[in-house]
Amino acid sequence: MATVSLLSDEDLSPDAAAVFADIRAARGTEYVNNFWRALANDPPLLRATWERLKHVMAPGALDPLVKEMLYMAVSTANGCEYCIHSHSAAARAKGMTDAQYGELLAVIGMAMQTNGLVSAMQVPVDTAFEA
Amino acid sequence: MATVSLLSDEDLSPDAAAVFADIRAARGTEYVNNFWRALANDPPLLRATWERLKHVMAPGALDPLVKEMLYMAVSTANGCEYCIHSHSAAARAKGMTDAQYGELLAVIGMAMQTNGLVSAMQVPVDTAFEA
Amino acid sequence: MATVSLLSDEDLSPDAAAVFADIRAARGTEYVNNFWRALANDPPLLRATWERLKHVMAPGALDPLVKEMLYMAVSTANGCEYCIHSHSAAARAKGMTDAQYGELLAVIGMAMQTNGLVSAMQVPVDTAFEA
Amino acid sequence: MATVSLLSDEDLSPDAAAVFADIRAARGTEYVNNFWRALANDPPLLRATWERLKHVMAPGALDPLVKEMLYMAVSTANGCEYCIHSHSAAARAKGMTDAQYGELLAVIGMAMQTNGLVSAMQVPVDTAFEA
Amino acid sequence: MATVSLLSDEDLSPDAAAVFADIRAARGTEYVNNFWRALANDPPLLRATWERLKHVMAPGALDPLVKEMLYMAVSTANGCEYCIHSHSAAARAKGMTDAQYGELLAVIGMAMQTNGLVSAMQVPVDTAFEA
Amino acid sequence: MATVSLLSDEDLSPDAAAVFADIRAARGTEYVNNFWRALANDPPLLRATWERLKHVMAPGALDPLVKEMLYMAVSTANGCEYCIHSHSAAARAKGMTDAQYGELLAVIGMAMQTNGLVSAMQVPVDTAFEA
Repeated sequence: MATVSLLSDEDLSPDAAAVFADIRAARGTEYVNNFWRALANDPPLLRATWERLKHVMAPGALDPLVKEMLYMAVSTANGCEYCIHSHSAAARAKGMTDAQYGELLAVIGMAMQTNGLVSAMQVPVDTAFEA
Repeated sequence: MATVSLLSDEDLSPDAAAVFADIRAARGTEYVNNFWRALANDPPLLRATWERLKHVMAPGALDPLVKEMLYMAVSTANGCEYCIHSHSAAARAKGMTDAQYGELLAVIGMAMQTNGLVSAMQVPVDTAFEA
Repeated sequence: MATVSLLSDEDLSPDAAAVFADIRAARGTEYVNNFWRALANDPPLLRATWERLKHVMAPGALDPLVKEMLYMAVSTANGCEYCIHSHSAAARAKGMTDAQYGELLAVIGMAMQTNGLVSAMQVPVDTAFEA
Repeated sequence: MATVSLLSDEDLSPDAAAVFADIRAARGTEYVNNFWRALANDPPLLRATWERLKHVMAPGALDPLVKEMLYMAVSTANGCEYCIHSHSAAARAKGMTDAQYGELLAVIGMAMQTNGLVSAMQVPVDTAFEA
Repeated sequence: MATVSLLSDEDLSPDAAAVFADIRAARGTEYVNNFWRALANDPPLLRATWERLKHVMAPGALDPLVKEMLYMAVSTANGCEYCIHSHSAAARAKGMTDAQYGELLAVIGMAMQTNGLVSAMQVPVDTAFEA
Repeated sequence: MATVSLLSDEDLSPDAAAVFADIRAARGTEYVNNFWRALANDPPLLRATWERLKHVMAPGALDPLVKEMLYMAVSTANGCEYCIHSHSAAARAKGMTDAQYGELLAVIGMAMQTNGLVSAMQVPVDTAFEA
C-alpha cells in the first residue's frame, strides 16, 4: 500500500490534470500508471518529474531501449520493486528480446558480484585508469 | 589501500599465472589491473571470476559497450569507486562518446531520483505491469 | 510474512512484557506495533533497542518531527518498507503537513539524484570543505 | 580522482558560464565547488541540475537547515563521500550546532540499526499504518 | 509477482531439467524453489549460477551454517526479501539456534549503526589497520 | 578527511576519557582507533555506542571471529571503507586464516550476485519458506 493516495482522474487539480494530458499524449495511451497518481498529490513535483523524465528518456545518443535497461540496472541495485516492474514492462514494450534480457541479468549479476569483491578487498584504483 | 596484497607477476602461483596469461591474451595487452592482482591471492576465486567475466562481457545480444554502461550503472548505484573507474575506462576504450556518457549520467540521475520517490511513497505495482 | 513469530501479549516473557508496558506508557496508547512484537522473541535485544530509540527520538536540539523526517530519509534510501510506513505515520501524527511532506519528497529525490551523479563521476572533495 | 575533467572558468562553454554566474549570484560567493565543475562538461545537465537544486533547497515549508540535514541523511545512507562533505559544510554554514549535529548522528545510527533489524526479520507493515 | 514466468517441471528445456535433477540430488529433496524456476528461463545462466552456488556453499574452511549466516547478513544489508527468507530457512535447517539468531540480529544491527556513523563522519582509516 | 575533529587524549572531556579507559582495559591495548576519536566529540553517543558494541561483540552463542566476519559482510554490502578495514584487521587478529577469508569473499560475491538476480526478476517468496 502506498503512504499517499493514488489519485483518480476526478481527484486531480487542474495543474495535475494538465500533466496527465501530456503523459497521455506523449505515450499514446489513456493509461496513466500509479507512480504519477501518487505524485499527483503534489502538482509541482509531478510536473518537474515528468518534464525531466520525458526529456531524459527521449531518443538521443543512446537508444530508448538501452536507456530502459540502464534504468532497470540502477533500480535493481537499489532494490526498487516498482521501478523494476515498470521499466521491465517498458523495455519489453520497446522490443527487448529474451536473449537481451538474459544478458542484462548476467551483467547485473556479474557487476553485483565484483562490486562486492572489490568492496571487501578495498582495491585501489589503478593509476592507468586515471590517465 | 587494499586489505590484501596486490601480487606482482613474480608472486603468482602457477594457477594464478595461468589466469593472468589468459587475461593478457584475451585483452591483447600486458597490463593486468589491480582487481586481478588482489584476487590472485586466492587462485580458484581468481579463475572462477575471470572465466565468468570473460563470458558475460563478450559480444552477444547486447554489444560490449552497452554492457560496460550497464556495469557502470550498477556500480554507481552501489557506490563502488574502483568499479566505476575501471568500467568508465573500458567504456571509453570501446568508443563511448561524450554525448553517450552525458545521457548515461542523465539516466542514472533520473533513475536514482525516481527510485527515491517511489520508495518514499511506497507506490504499489500496477496490475497492468503484471500482465 | 516475517521470518519470526509476531508475539501476542499472552506469549511475552516477563522481560518483554515489562518493555511493552514501558512502550505503552511512553506513547500513551495500548497499541504496540509489529516491530516490537518481532523483537520480543529476544527480550534483551527488544529492551536495548527500545531504550535507545526512546532516548534518541525524544525532544532535544532537534524537534521530534524533524527526527521523524530524518528517519524517513534514511529508511527511504535503504528501501525499508516497514520503516517508511511506520515513520510516515509517526510524522503525520506529529503534525507533518502536506507541504512539508512534499518538500521532504523533493529533497529526497534531489539528494538521490546528485548522489548518483557524484558517484558516477567520482567528484573529489573540495579542499574548501575540509577547512 | 574524477572520471571527468573539473573545468576551470576559462574552459566553460557560454552556457555553462551562464549557470556559474547564476550559482555565484544565488550564493553570494565567487567559489564554485567541484560538483558543478564536473557537471560543466555537459551544460544542459549542469543547468537542469542547478535549476532544480536551487528550487528544491530554497526556504519553504521546511527551513533550509532542515533540508541540509535531510540531504546529509540520504547521502550517508548512500555512502556518498562528496555529498556528505558538501552538505555538512552547508549545514554548518546555515547554523547547525554541535548539539543538533550530535542528534542527527544519533538518529541516523538508530535508523540504520532498525532498518537492518526490520529487514532481517521482514516485519510486515501493521494494518494500523495503512489507515 | 515475478517479472518472468516461474517454470514448472513440464516447461523446462532439457538443459534446465538436467540442472534441476542435480539440485534435487545435491539437496536430497524433490522441492525446487522459485529462484531456480525463474532462472530456468535462461538455462545457461541457471547452470552457471547453480554450479557456482553449489561450490561456494559447500563445507570448507567455514562451516555451512556460518556461510548461511553470512549470506543472510549481505542479503539484509541489500534488503533482498527473497534471499533473506530462503537463507533464513536454510540456516534453520542447518541447525541455527534461537540464541545464534538473536546474536546474528544484534551484530547486523550494530554493523548497520556504525556503518552509518562512520559514513556520516567520514572517519579516515587508521594507519594501524593498513600494516 | 573526517567531517569532525579526531580528538587526541588531551582533548577529551572527562566522560569521553572514562570511555577511552574502558576501551583500553577491555582490549588490552593503549591504541584507540579513529572511530572512537571521532565519536568523542559527543560523549553520550560515544558511551552508548561503545557499551553496545562491547556487549554485542562479546563471546556468546556465536564465536567472536564469526561475529567479525558477519560485520565484514554487512560493511561490504554497505561499502563502508573504514568498517571493512577495521573489522578485517580485527578478524585477522582473532585468527581468521587465508582459507577462511577466501571463502568469506566467495560467499559475499555469491550473495551479492544472487541478490541482484532475485531483485531483477522480483522472485516471489516460496510458501515453503513461510512455514
